[in-house]
Amino acid sequence: MLMKASSQSLTEQLSARFAQRIRDRLLAPGARLPSVRQCALQQGVSPSTVVAAYDQLLAQGLVEARKNRGFFVRESRIEGPAGARVAAGTEPASPASRGHVPVDATALIRGMFHKISHKPQPGMGVFPPDWLESTFMPAAVRKVTGTRALLDFSLQYGEPHGDGGLRRALSNKLANINVQAAPENIITTVGATHALDIVSRTLLRPGDHVMVEEPGWAVEFARLTALGMRLLPVPRRPDGPDLEVMTRYCEVHQPKLYVSVSVLHNPTGHCLTPGSAHRLLQLASRHDFHIVEDDTYSHIAPEHATRLCALDGLQRTIHVSGFAKILAPNWRVGFLAANPALIERLLDTKLLTTLTTPALLERALALCIEQGQLRRHAERIRTRLDAARSRSVKLALQAGCRFAAEPAGLFGWVDTGVDTDALAQRMLDDGYLLAPGALFHADRKPSTLMRINFATTQEAAFWKRYSELVRTM
Amino acid sequence: MLMKASSQSLTEQLSARFAQRIRDRLLAPGARLPSVRQCALQQGVSPSTVVAAYDQLLAQGLVEARKNRGFFVRESRIEGPAGARVAAGTEPASPASRGHVPVDATALIRGMFHKISHKPQPGMGVFPPDWLESTFMPAAVRKVTGTRALLDFSLQYGEPHGDGGLRRALSNKLANINVQAAPENIITTVGATHALDIVSRTLLRPGDHVMVEEPGWAVEFARLTALGMRLLPVPRRPDGPDLEVMTRYCEVHQPKLYVSVSVLHNPTGHCLTPGSAHRLLQLASRHDFHIVEDDTYSHIAPEHATRLCALDGLQRTIHVSGFAKILAPNWRVGFLAANPALIERLLDTKLLTTLTTPALLERALALCIEQGQLRRHAERIRTRLDAARSRSVKLALQAGCRFAAEPAGLFGWVDTGVDTDALAQRMLDDGYLLAPGALFHADRKPSTLMRINFATTQEAAFWKRYSELVRTM
Repeated sequence: MLMKASSQSLTEQLSARFAQRIRDRLLAPGARLPSVRQCALQQGVSPSTVVAAYDQLLAQGLVEARKNRGFFVRESRIEGPAGARVAAGTEPASPASRGHVPVDATALIRGMFHKISHKPQPGMGVFPPDWLESTFMPAAVRKVTGTRALLDFSLQYGEPHGDGGLRRALSNKLANINVQAAPENIITTVGATHALDIVSRTLLRPGDHVMVEEPGWAVEFARLTALGMRLLPVPRRPDGPDLEVMTRYCEVHQPKLYVSVSVLHNPTGHCLTPGSAHRLLQLASRHDFHIVEDDTYSHIAPEHATRLCALDGLQRTIHVSGFAKILAPNWRVGFLAANPALIERLLDTKLLTTLTTPALLERALALCIEQGQLRRHAERIRTRLDAARSRSVKLALQAGCRFAAEPAGLFGWVDTGVDTDALAQRMLDDGYLLAPGALFHADRKPSTLMRINFATTQEAAFWKRYSELVRTM
Repeated sequence: MLMKASSQSLTEQLSARFAQRIRDRLLAPGARLPSVRQCALQQGVSPSTVVAAYDQLLAQGLVEARKNRGFFVRESRIEGPAGARVAAGTEPASPASRGHVPVDATALIRGMFHKISHKPQPGMGVFPPDWLESTFMPAAVRKVTGTRALLDFSLQYGEPHGDGGLRRALSNKLANINVQAAPENIITTVGATHALDIVSRTLLRPGDHVMVEEPGWAVEFARLTALGMRLLPVPRRPDGPDLEVMTRYCEVHQPKLYVSVSVLHNPTGHCLTPGSAHRLLQLASRHDFHIVEDDTYSHIAPEHATRLCALDGLQRTIHVSGFAKILAPNWRVGFLAANPALIERLLDTKLLTTLTTPALLERALALCIEQGQLRRHAERIRTRLDAARSRSVKLALQAGCRFAAEPAGLFGWVDTGVDTDALAQRMLDDGYLLAPGALFHADRKPSTLMRINFATTQEAAFWKRYSELVRTM
């Protein structure tokens, strides 16, 4: 809220807030600022204060005035030739020009990384830090940072595939979900994101077609687009991808790859059924495409969930996962598993992108896995999440939300009935970062849906403010 | 050496050795094995032992026999569409077909990462681990792994740009070499390799032309080729790049980027002169291309070395460096500095490739820098390297080598007078990994040059064996 008693004038406070939001890309280039009247009402200040604040932004070159249309965030960045800007596939101009204020994919990522406020963040993609706290993790780190071990893990490049201890632990862990991968068929990476990047750079050539899930994860869309790939969005149904749509894509475009979160799909929480998995693999075989199965949520997945990699035996599937969702987001430890012929090519790509990865953190993670502590930790988190989900679902329903998918896992996919891009902008004023539905669509089309994190939407205060704002929209 | 007293027969030992070398890509796909007669002579075994060993390799599917031409390593891997194989730009088939046995770029990298033998490795790109040992580094790690600090550095994604403490330390460090970059214009990366990858993905589109130095670093050639870029090799002279060649490239191909190691160039050790730097920047301005200056060897660089980024003020230059050469190769901490307009685009690419990077190791590195310990450590290493270089140069000259470039820095660029690909294969039998000259040329053409690491070529034993082999070739 703007504060009258502050040493800054209301105009300065207002213009500083917009300036920060533009720099953080929470107001994307091309986005329209609220009208003077609207802004004055929302902020409880006089129109002349808003006019003065907008003038300051103009003087700073952050916004531009368009005749009879209002103020727009300037497209200040030089656009990258390779589509380097992080937008989910298309120009943000079109929704913006309809008075729409999109939250950029980067803004969401950046928002996930540094605090908007001290409030729980409904748009977050991970568990809050206090959920992840443990004593076993620091103990494991102490074991690998004794002077001798530390030097061994630091002063040489380390194994190209990644720490051998971790790969053995992962091989055993994968066997528990029926994915058979020997340690030499596993490569460690800088988080699951790096693993997905390695897979697409190894299997695809710019201009290739890739099937992605819709709704799906904006960062994946943006990464593939930046690599010059063409996205084919496949609707994700409760039981799996829409195979009719996939079949048509295969006939017309010969896609090389399908990127899928089979288990606890982001954002819907859907899990692939065995029947869909079988038919999907048949289609992949018939049309000769690879599937990369992103099992990021495996730690909180239901037991006996169906995984393509388990059915297919890593023939044309590649398994990807990481530990950001269960142990330590900032360690950036992920991995991939593939068949022996493919693993060598994937390893080449890893070497070209980062050479090796830090063995110190990998070995500490191995200790956490080996001693069963990570498994027990995950059980505790699942139990806590079940309770949080119950509370959040109840509050969301009371606030008038409708669940577009059966609540499961970490995320809820809810219909608010109002434009969630606009809602997200309003909620920012109260220190809440939302994840509007447009972020999960390759074409960024406006949406009344949003993704909520069940761990961070258990408090009545958020839903109260949410209801107040929705009523005014 | 093969051992008669071993529990394995000589045939088994010989076939196992070749099999391992093929798997490690020290014998690249398409490479010809030595003739039976030649191999028998080299190994001191009977021709029938060699025939039996080659038969075993045939049975294992590792080699194939070509009529009247001998045995060749099978091209077993499925080739990647995007040129995923790590070769320095071209097919290894052509040198191989001339009886040439190339060492693959990947083999060199992989060899750098796991020990070929316990001998000092002349082909290594880094200092031996015992040179890098220190007490201050473990002390810094202890400081950041106290339980509270550890949780802070682990349980959230961390700052998108990288740890703020490290970026402040780097900003000060850069000011010492007259590169002005505020902390917010610095991004940390997974080693300098990742920084170079981020720069090329942000500035280039597949099919673009990129100027690289020749001789130059094979991994860089391979990475750019895998991204679909076209390489324009610019001869590197003692004073800098050949500007006439660059001018012609600019006129014909409009390259978007020039990748350069200005200071202590790899492999020649050349340093850019101020005059060349000035003219190069004028050319860049005239033809509108960016320059990424890879300052990997800055820690051991001569004082007052000329850097393009210092002259240009990061207008069209991007500074890249890392700490693999001075502190901890396996930590994979690197960084880049660029102007404010560019840094945001580079940050987007970082987020898309790895999200954040591990703050734990970054903050430990910051402590090493802040307290001046890394600087004093680098001074000690420079002194030790000077002594090592004197010894190595003397031994190399005695062994009949000619220096193709004035000895400086970590590497010597020497002319052996014989095919260094063939020499490299022979030296492997004695447990030495060489870096043959062909690796440093974009077209992989056979060369009598090789790169030696001054820290690992100070022992007479290596040069004795080297001289014996060169005499037989």
